[in-house]
Amino acid sequence: MPDSVLVHSPATLSNLGCGFDVFGLALAAPYDTIRLTRSATPGVRIQHLDPYNLPTDPARNVAGVALLALLKQVPEEMGFELEITKGIKPGSGVGSSAASAAGAVVAANALLGNCFSKMQLVDFAMEGEAVASGARHADNIAPAIFGGFTVVRALEPAIDIIALPAPPLWVAVVHPQIELKTSDSRKVLPATVPLGLAVRQWANVAGLVAGFMMADYDLIGRSLDDYIVEPARLPLIPGLAEARTRALAAGAIGGGISGSGPSIFMLNRTEATAQAVGAAMGGVFAELGIACNVYVGPVGTTGARVVEED
Amino acid sequence: MPDSVLVHSPATLSNLGCGFDVFGLALAAPYDTIRLTRSATPGVRIQHLDPYNLPTDPARNVAGVALLALLKQVPEEMGFELEITKGIKPGSGVGSSAASAAGAVVAANALLGNCFSKMQLVDFAMEGEAVASGARHADNIAPAIFGGFTVVRALEPAIDIIALPAPPLWVAVVHPQIELKTSDSRKVLPATVPLGLAVRQWANVAGLVAGFMMADYDLIGRSLDDYIVEPARLPLIPGLAEARTRALAAGAIGGGISGSGPSIFMLNRTEATAQAVGAAMGGVFAELGIACNVYVGPVGTTGARVVEED
Repeated sequence: MPDSVLVHSPATLSNLGCGFDVFGLALAAPYDTIRLTRSATPGVRIQHLDPYNLPTDPARNVAGVALLALLKQVPEEMGFELEITKGIKPGSGVGSSAASAAGAVVAANALLGNCFSKMQLVDFAMEGEAVASGARHADNIAPAIFGGFTVVRALEPAIDIIALPAPPLWVAVVHPQIELKTSDSRKVLPATVPLGLAVRQWANVAGLVAGFMMADYDLIGRSLDDYIVEPARLPLIPGLAEARTRALAAGAIGGGISGSGPSIFMLNRTEATAQAVGAAMGGVFAELGIACNVYVGPVGTTGARVVEED
Repeated sequence: MPDSVLVHSPATLSNLGCGFDVFGLALAAPYDTIRLTRSATPGVRIQHLDPYNLPTDPARNVAGVALLALLKQVPEEMGFELEITKGIKPGSGVGSSAASAAGAVVAANALLGNCFSKMQLVDFAMEGEAVASGARHADNIAPAIFGGFTVVRALEPAIDIIALPAPPLWVAVVHPQIELKTSDSRKVLPATVPLGLAVRQWANVAGLVAGFMMADYDLIGRSLDDYIVEPARLPLIPGLAEARTRALAAGAIGGGISGSGPSIFMLNRTEATAQAVGAAMGGVFAELGIACNVYVGPVGTTGARVVEED
């Protein structure tokens, strides 16, 4: 077994239109780079090789908390030296905290001869998400660990994640520099939804799963629409409606809010379309005088993975 | 083109657990037998070769109404002689009216050189359902026409039905002789549902689609549960909870209310299990002093189909 591994852990989209709290999709890039080294000294020591001033106290760092949860299940006394280089900007709405937590436990599992299942790794990494957002949720963790398109069917009584293949797709994400706290994004959600609207939503959920599994791009496009969560969050993200209109005009298949926002994602058939769609969405925010970052990349078929062993 | 055709049009399950108003599944049997013959006399004449005293006025007969809707789209002046032998008992909760309506339009399409698409046939047959239940709905019509497992993603702005393969499965259906009007079944539905419960429901919807497409029987079983509609209808169907308990004990994968009830379906891996499950459910109603019929049959890979041309 190696003493040290290098892991790339990717950005992810959660919710994915109609699949609030359930769907996730892995990107191939950007990714966090994680170096994890076995140590005889118990506990976790963290260094951040990036400019984001994230906490290095393991009890307050998402990757540290995930590793501490994993270490509780390891009988031997051991510890880890963890170096994180964030390739995913924190708060960018593409699963930054999930990438660090997932990458750390995938790295630890490699150092331990892969003794844990992916479901167990999700369980550990969710402890990191709980520190980041106050809630144990797996919608970004699942694609960060399994890759492709994921369905979090249940967390109780057991974690039940369905990992599905995704057809070739290019993602364009625009991250407008709007302050939007996850807690505020949660506050606008309706407590109840009309039954008829819920039915339309799960009809789209069924269509999106079938569309991904059959690589039917038109069906994916028709099924992405979210009738429940996006309408509630629309007022929080100026430019969202216009960005969607221009993205579709530029050839996007469809899209929506990434996670709890403010980032917006669009799925596309080709890299060229994704670039045009990213530029079109960026233009909307430029006109509004809101700075933004645009990412374009292919869907990732693998989740966090070891790229080097020493 | 033939002058006369014989069509078998199968029983179907709608809702299918978590997929209220969206999912459907075709059975191979029982089926209605429909003889349709071209006539130079406009309009539709109907004969029923069964003991159910169904209306023979085409404007009040589900198959007649469906044929009249189709005839409106045929430029030439023509009519049909229709003979129906119901193999599916009306009111048995396995899509009896849908089978007659779907079978009639599939037969007419064969007499017309299959000039209509399956989506158009669904549209015509839904007119028959509207006469039977007061609402245009396609959850039984879709599997009766496409076969296999179907998703009614939308009826507006266009009919959008996704036809998916179903893995080998045996269905056991018990039809207790309880009077339960569709309108009463509708009345108990909640107007709104808590968002958290809607999320759990669409997580199961996603799981069930993936389970069918991957032929993953365990996933199908875990995903069938309906958190919204079945709890509301449970008080209307005495014996439902106990029938489910005994069906699962006898080896069923899972199940629920068929359509709006009172029939109960269970999916099974083998014919032997389906027989045992049917007997176990029948036993529950026998103990309650409620007469019931039990059907056991395989899932149908085709919908209504021509079996003879003259």
